[in-house]
Amino acid sequence: MKHFNKITIIGVGLIGGSIGLAIKKRGLAREVVGVFRRRSTLNKALKRRAIDKGTMDVKAGINGADLIILATPVSSIPRIAAIVIKYATRGAVITDTGSTKAWLVGKIEKMVRLRPSVFFVGSHPMAGSEKTSVEFAIDGLLEGAPCIVTKTAATDKAALGKITDFWKALGSKVSVTTPAIHDRSVSLVSHLPHLVAFSLAGAVPGKETAYAAEGFKDTTRIASSDPSIWADIFLTNRKEISRACRKFEKYYKDIKKALAKGSYAGVIRMLKTSKSKRDRFVYGKKT
Amino acid sequence: MKHFNKITIIGVGLIGGSIGLAIKKRGLAREVVGVFRRRSTLNKALKRRAIDKGTMDVKAGINGADLIILATPVSSIPRIAAIVIKYATRGAVITDTGSTKAWLVGKIEKMVRLRPSVFFVGSHPMAGSEKTSVEFAIDGLLEGAPCIVTKTAATDKAALGKITDFWKALGSKVSVTTPAIHDRSVSLVSHLPHLVAFSLAGAVPGKETAYAAEGFKDTTRIASSDPSIWADIFLTNRKEISRACRKFEKYYKDIKKALAKGSYAGVIRMLKTSKSKRDRFVYGKKT
Repeated sequence: MKHFNKITIIGVGLIGGSIGLAIKKRGLAREVVGVFRRRSTLNKALKRRAIDKGTMDVKAGINGADLIILATPVSSIPRIAAIVIKYATRGAVITDTGSTKAWLVGKIEKMVRLRPSVFFVGSHPMAGSEKTSVEFAIDGLLEGAPCIVTKTAATDKAALGKITDFWKALGSKVSVTTPAIHDRSVSLVSHLPHLVAFSLAGAVPGKETAYAAEGFKDTTRIASSDPSIWADIFLTNRKEISRACRKFEKYYKDIKKALAKGSYAGVIRMLKTSKSKRDRFVYGKKT
Repeated sequence: MKHFNKITIIGVGLIGGSIGLAIKKRGLAREVVGVFRRRSTLNKALKRRAIDKGTMDVKAGINGADLIILATPVSSIPRIAAIVIKYATRGAVITDTGSTKAWLVGKIEKMVRLRPSVFFVGSHPMAGSEKTSVEFAIDGLLEGAPCIVTKTAATDKAALGKITDFWKALGSKVSVTTPAIHDRSVSLVSHLPHLVAFSLAGAVPGKETAYAAEGFKDTTRIASSDPSIWADIFLTNRKEISRACRKFEKYYKDIKKALAKGSYAGVIRMLKTSKSKRDRFVYGKKT
């Protein structure tokens, strides 16, 4: 991969910070600059050595950058993208780390059309945890993790190549797909599980958790995620999430129906299907 | 704790095997005997050193035992308890490890009434994982784990004391409660999460899991549990599970309603409640 001169990361949290650490560890850029909304986060990111320099001025931060990564919460990205597209140095490639793509890519591509000397390619590095701050950032977060890069009729081929090479250089397993296909897949494997985990954690009265063990802990882990990040994701991918919910509800109701009938055969048939799908996903084999 | 002479474990899987290993490690009995349905499991348990001796004959296995632990799947326990109660040596205390209690304790107490020289106290050591075989048994499985011991009007006080002391000696955090209260609590913190995890794993098409990451993996972990064990549990605690489901559905539908309205405030309010409940459960504090 041709190395970058200056990479600017806007929003240096768990993801942005881990990207910064990985770039620095692998020497993929001469300089990594972070752009912040809060001085306190800037200081934490410097202390964590996730960036070389930090600023609270977007315009100054992106000046001369050949790669700009928008790693703020989804709903704030279009607003920041508008400024970035206006002031980015000619030839700069812009990408993002947003968890929903059709909504974001649609908005940003409209803006980029007005400034053809900069390029945009949507990304979704699928790593992270329920923790959100740069303090939890680690250089290996993206290693081995899936990373989806989006391609549309408007995507510049050279920019697409740069972005896929960049994520690969960070150790991610890159797939290129359309924003629509991305949104459908993640609604099922990420957004729906979050909605379900939030519902579980919210529904169980605190006083009952005295007897809760590992099962409850794991099933609800992602309900400890940042509510503002997830409200954004849910609201920007509503249609696909609603479709994913219908699939979940169908299965859930069918188990309940077999249960209400007292049908051991019916219940066990459904649980076996669930287990074999889950085992195949984790262990890559039928069990 | 007064040590036991002979402890017999009927059903030496993950739980039974881990109990055997812990008894032996802590020297709580002169002898640990396992009773098996299959020769192959008997050999595995001996190899794992989870027991001192194994047999496939219940009557011989329990002869002379002062503590008998029924650690087979829930639905098989009443049938085995009938034999055990008939042939147990006078004064023997019988307990079980079943995940539902009202159904089991009710059935077994009826049988014990006919033979007042043996005693029964229901137990539910809340440990385990999606793995079920004795090969995964470890001596520390019950250490620090909650263990519920049930008390009813029919429970013998001395036997109750022996059983609570026994689990405490294994390192578990023992609570004594009624079968009904137990069933309500575990329906919320264990059975409902399992039902939801099985539904999630079953609903997501295999081809979509290419992009699945840690969130999906954790949320569905317990869907890799043994379907026959869980069909048993679901069917023997139907009423409470159905009540727990209603709580879950209410929360889930309310999030979806806020989402359908496009209400950021409504969505975030619910997610915040979920997160704060889950954080309090895991970290013991408000966040």
